[in-house]
Amino acid sequence: MTYRTSTAEGPIDFVNVLDLEKMAQSVIPKGAFGYIASGAGDTFTLRENIRSFNHKLIIPQVLRGVENPTTDVVFDGDTLTSPIIMAPVAAHKLANEQAEVASAKGVSEFGTIYTTSSYATTDLPEISQALNGTPHWFQFYYSKDDGINRNIMDRVKAEGYKAIVLTADATVGGNREVDKRNGFVFPVNMPIVQEYLPEGVGKTMDYVYKSAKQALTPKDIEYIAQYSGLPVYVKGPQSAEDALISMEAGATGIWVTNHGGRQLDGGPAAFDSLQEVAEAVAGRVPIVFDSGVRRGQHIFKALASGADLVALGRPAIYGLALGGSHGVRQVFEHLNNELKMVMQLAGTQTIADIKKTKLRDNKYDSSFPFDPDTLNLV
Amino acid sequence: MTYRTSTAEGPIDFVNVLDLEKMAQSVIPKGAFGYIASGAGDTFTLRENIRSFNHKLIIPQVLRGVENPTTDVVFDGDTLTSPIIMAPVAAHKLANEQAEVASAKGVSEFGTIYTTSSYATTDLPEISQALNGTPHWFQFYYSKDDGINRNIMDRVKAEGYKAIVLTADATVGGNREVDKRNGFVFPVNMPIVQEYLPEGVGKTMDYVYKSAKQALTPKDIEYIAQYSGLPVYVKGPQSAEDALISMEAGATGIWVTNHGGRQLDGGPAAFDSLQEVAEAVAGRVPIVFDSGVRRGQHIFKALASGADLVALGRPAIYGLALGGSHGVRQVFEHLNNELKMVMQLAGTQTIADIKKTKLRDNKYDSSFPFDPDTLNLV
Amino acid sequence: MTYRTSTAEGPIDFVNVLDLEKMAQSVIPKGAFGYIASGAGDTFTLRENIRSFNHKLIIPQVLRGVENPTTDVVFDGDTLTSPIIMAPVAAHKLANEQAEVASAKGVSEFGTIYTTSSYATTDLPEISQALNGTPHWFQFYYSKDDGINRNIMDRVKAEGYKAIVLTADATVGGNREVDKRNGFVFPVNMPIVQEYLPEGVGKTMDYVYKSAKQALTPKDIEYIAQYSGLPVYVKGPQSAEDALISMEAGATGIWVTNHGGRQLDGGPAAFDSLQEVAEAVAGRVPIVFDSGVRRGQHIFKALASGADLVALGRPAIYGLALGGSHGVRQVFEHLNNELKMVMQLAGTQTIADIKKTKLRDNKYDSSFPFDPDTLNLV
Amino acid sequence: MTYRTSTAEGPIDFVNVLDLEKMAQSVIPKGAFGYIASGAGDTFTLRENIRSFNHKLIIPQVLRGVENPTTDVVFDGDTLTSPIIMAPVAAHKLANEQAEVASAKGVSEFGTIYTTSSYATTDLPEISQALNGTPHWFQFYYSKDDGINRNIMDRVKAEGYKAIVLTADATVGGNREVDKRNGFVFPVNMPIVQEYLPEGVGKTMDYVYKSAKQALTPKDIEYIAQYSGLPVYVKGPQSAEDALISMEAGATGIWVTNHGGRQLDGGPAAFDSLQEVAEAVAGRVPIVFDSGVRRGQHIFKALASGADLVALGRPAIYGLALGGSHGVRQVFEHLNNELKMVMQLAGTQTIADIKKTKLRDNKYDSSFPFDPDTLNLV
Repeated sequence: MTYRTSTAEGPIDFVNVLDLEKMAQSVIPKGAFGYIASGAGDTFTLRENIRSFNHKLIIPQVLRGVENPTTDVVFDGDTLTSPIIMAPVAAHKLANEQAEVASAKGVSEFGTIYTTSSYATTDLPEISQALNGTPHWFQFYYSKDDGINRNIMDRVKAEGYKAIVLTADATVGGNREVDKRNGFVFPVNMPIVQEYLPEGVGKTMDYVYKSAKQALTPKDIEYIAQYSGLPVYVKGPQSAEDALISMEAGATGIWVTNHGGRQLDGGPAAFDSLQEVAEAVAGRVPIVFDSGVRRGQHIFKALASGADLVALGRPAIYGLALGGSHGVRQVFEHLNNELKMVMQLAGTQTIADIKKTKLRDNKYDSSFPFDPDTLNLV
Repeated sequence: MTYRTSTAEGPIDFVNVLDLEKMAQSVIPKGAFGYIASGAGDTFTLRENIRSFNHKLIIPQVLRGVENPTTDVVFDGDTLTSPIIMAPVAAHKLANEQAEVASAKGVSEFGTIYTTSSYATTDLPEISQALNGTPHWFQFYYSKDDGINRNIMDRVKAEGYKAIVLTADATVGGNREVDKRNGFVFPVNMPIVQEYLPEGVGKTMDYVYKSAKQALTPKDIEYIAQYSGLPVYVKGPQSAEDALISMEAGATGIWVTNHGGRQLDGGPAAFDSLQEVAEAVAGRVPIVFDSGVRRGQHIFKALASGADLVALGRPAIYGLALGGSHGVRQVFEHLNNELKMVMQLAGTQTIADIKKTKLRDNKYDSSFPFDPDTLNLV
Repeated sequence: MTYRTSTAEGPIDFVNVLDLEKMAQSVIPKGAFGYIASGAGDTFTLRENIRSFNHKLIIPQVLRGVENPTTDVVFDGDTLTSPIIMAPVAAHKLANEQAEVASAKGVSEFGTIYTTSSYATTDLPEISQALNGTPHWFQFYYSKDDGINRNIMDRVKAEGYKAIVLTADATVGGNREVDKRNGFVFPVNMPIVQEYLPEGVGKTMDYVYKSAKQALTPKDIEYIAQYSGLPVYVKGPQSAEDALISMEAGATGIWVTNHGGRQLDGGPAAFDSLQEVAEAVAGRVPIVFDSGVRRGQHIFKALASGADLVALGRPAIYGLALGGSHGVRQVFEHLNNELKMVMQLAGTQTIADIKKTKLRDNKYDSSFPFDPDTLNLV
Repeated sequence: MTYRTSTAEGPIDFVNVLDLEKMAQSVIPKGAFGYIASGAGDTFTLRENIRSFNHKLIIPQVLRGVENPTTDVVFDGDTLTSPIIMAPVAAHKLANEQAEVASAKGVSEFGTIYTTSSYATTDLPEISQALNGTPHWFQFYYSKDDGINRNIMDRVKAEGYKAIVLTADATVGGNREVDKRNGFVFPVNMPIVQEYLPEGVGKTMDYVYKSAKQALTPKDIEYIAQYSGLPVYVKGPQSAEDALISMEAGATGIWVTNHGGRQLDGGPAAFDSLQEVAEAVAGRVPIVFDSGVRRGQHIFKALASGADLVALGRPAIYGLALGGSHGVRQVFEHLNNELKMVMQLAGTQTIADIKKTKLRDNKYDSSFPFDPDTLNLV
């Protein structure tokens, strides 16, 4: 039976990005929504991802003469609207029939980097067309078969991808218990990896992940860099040690993430690892950050903690589900506007100013419910 | 359509200031109440403002011979009933038809400093009349237009204001999501700033804030001080650095606040910043504190942490809504009585004694619900 | 109208002391129960009193050859069944028509020290008769009138009291908001202080407290010690400084308490202050501890933190309400049995062994709900 | 009346081990389930046992070339499928009519060490038969009577037990309040200790524990070692001191546990004590760990904190209740599979690799509800 999901395209009426999750739940089929929204195990790490931004505090700065702060950055020769970029997310078709065509279009219209997942549900040429020249990166689930890997790299280069992002934190799938409870299997095909996943439809996450290579080593980075001639970002280091191992193997960028709390439960919030990685990297290569970003203040804190770019996963996909390409663009614009407000109040005119800002450690745990309704004001 | 709100005037039956919020909700129209009560973003900082007072503990002192402790202080030549003063709050008419006339009268009867907001819904002469000689300060939302600024300063001087409080933490409005959800627009005019906000009615917060000057710098302090000849308090520093910048520019006082959690969410509780600021100021200029004050013990802790004066915002406005000028006075008296009880039990006879008191750091986070009902005793 | 309350006498069916609070609520009139059970202000300190015992952890010790541990102690020449003693609590008649006659009898049968409150609802001779020779102390709310004080001390000495406990932490009543909400006034007379509180019935807590002397100083301790010739315990120090002030004035014992969270809200849990006081006292005088004790492990932790005696307030009064003299004795026996079990598991044969035990600091806040029902096992 | 419980045998449909508790509650009689599931006192320590695993965080390691990690270990000459072993648990017949015969069979089929409880509800020969050669240890509740102790040791040796585990943390029963509320008495006999507990049926926990020896000392370890000639594990040390006392007395292994939170409430989580013990033991003897293990990540963290073997109690018993021998095996397999997934993501190929891993201290308390339903995704 054919999978059917949202076909929305157009403006979304929302106040903040946290709203979108509940809204998206009503337009995406249950199993697919569970796959998108949930995390691993007890979801400890998933929740810590958001909560952890409270561990550092932004001290407002006054009298800095800030007005209309700007978020544009030049990255690798491209001028981006913002340091907020699109994270690789598998199978956009789960969220919207338009799939990656719409998300690529939305990101392109916003004007930032788009990262294509190996497990995209649209093939490379269609994505390229929608990207319309916006800078794009390719997230690589590395195959066990080097021939397949070379074929994929050849195709990626031909489509003008500017970097390869090697996912290193997902050599098996995390313990996604919600998928098990929902009996979720992939209802859509993944054309980019069709050589090693010819029959994606009907497969569990477990099957999908196991089809890729488990025994990744630094040599794989070297090989990708050498064969493709492209910059290689390693996605997964959460410690100084792993960042250094990656850089020694030739990584031209480090992507700090815990895969949105979807892989190893019982590990730290990604944000709590960012500063250590940034200190080890010491500016030698760029750092991309994702996991738990739901607010402009989160983006500010990530940038002030060493990130050069901050990637969105779930929020963009919820935008896709609720508003197609328009919805994706709206989510980026919304968070960028939140960021600008934070910049104004924090006394920072530019992204470079944010990166010089020192956050204050929060001495207190400050757990609190993220429930806007508890004040009973609306 | 004309805005209609409470017209109450007279005694309020309440046990503590936390009660007032729920009671006020029933007499103020929904959108206006949301504007008054809510905070920015996730309301993390709003909630931390109150919770943070648990971070420091008052150690009761015994056998100090304290009896009938006194709260009066001499400040800038005026004898005040108490170091508790009135914070600037926009648009009192949202809470009570009598607006600033009633709040000024209540504060005057209590006998402390009244701070008039630039966004008052009553013009200066009427407020002056109600103040009846009580010392008063003017909170300044600085215009982009220096001519307008001079006009306002001229008027303020003519009305006998003793100081100008320059708000530096609100060069744009915070992310007030409750206002967005309620579709709140200002239903009342703001006569003091009519030159740069001629049509306040029907405008959003965003519009209102953007009408003021964003690019504030230390030079603005210098200019205000020089042109007005009045002491200038800078409202907004939450760090040693910002306090020093303000003082170097000529600030004659530092007002530590995070705008009641209404501006930058994800920043610290104001109380958690007070000690750092006080250590930097080192007694060279007075410190005013607000944000989160709901209890006599909060006032005690703020004074013991370096504040010279402690300002009330929302509690006074709830008193205004529920009891007009009488209600405002009652709120001040109530908190002052709570303060006196704390003083007696803490072994401090005078405000000066409080300021010599050392609080104990709470090593534990001690989050707990502020819910008097959980004991089921009433 | 005459006040009517429980007349229970006999065994109580209960599993732990926390049960008793809910059970007692059903046999004591609402206002009186609120007075007994509630605390000051936000009840932060009240709740911290219980929670704070989690701040220190008992490390079980194995292979210590412990069997049938013993709790008897010799204190001031008397052999007590246990270091658990009766705290002074006002107005036992609120809980049981038998009032102090029953509580004194229960404590005497258990075999420990009974502390009579100045605000007892039974006169001294009747209490003495019920005490039947058990060692007894007199808690003194000091009058403003020295003649009255001398009269009271004369009577107390005549009744064989072995010590005077001067309450120093309650020179005014705490902010008991539950009493205000319930409109609670004292429905019973207090014969011991009838000279300065001739008409106790119908008076608020506030009135009662204000009738005693506010301006207590070290000279009062000196005077009590000199006039009475009895040991004087100062009840209220929560810091090294206050313990030393008391000792310098001649205190022969320090009673660490925060008055059961009924006086200054926003101060520390009493248990969190105990170690500091004990280090300052350094064994020179005995230390009594109360506030928050609900478990045998709490008593163990207090003894291991420097207390020589641990006093029960509310739990004993709940026993009184539910079982008269038998109920009081049962509560002491129950907690003493819990203590013995803890001693066995902690590898401590005697109270002296407990006092040599080192607790482990809990690095984590470990807030958790005290709700035995959450496991759904009963 | 004869006790009747589950007779299940076969596969269980479950997603994680936390599910099993609720499922088991529906097949085990209420009193027996309460006995199995509950803990001592306020259940503070019971809950901390699980929560404490959040105090240390696993940092995923990437690019380590890990593939199909292996869990087998050689312990004392035996090759085990996994370092996960069976903890001693009293009275398996409470959970399943097949009792220890089924649990021994399940553990044997999984291929790890089985620990027989002194309070087994099946006699030694029948257990041996079911064990079918899998390595087995005997948990000893030491009698007051040395003759009985020798008889038991003679029988144990004859049945090929490879070690004796002396329980030292349960010289009396903990304060099991759920048992008191349920009026639970043992409904089944305990044949192994029939010499000193001839009539186990109808007895309370209290009676059962008091029948064993209270005054255990290091000499008892020496005696057991000398008489039996077997290795002796001391079960109960939670501090360096107790580990060293045990080792000096001849213990050939230390079992770190707090008896599943069933003995001394108000003590630390067992996991929080593990590192201190491991540092004191310094590899001289093996360390076994139990208490609170519900996840593969918990096992990983225990191994990385110094444990050589990790024992399962309640989870195995729930497996027994729900699926007999098959259920027991499934629980072991399930947790071992979770462990393998964690190993893959943590970059550890073998158990030895785990033991070289350094966990990161969690600076934050991170209490959070273990409620998979709160995300509303299933």
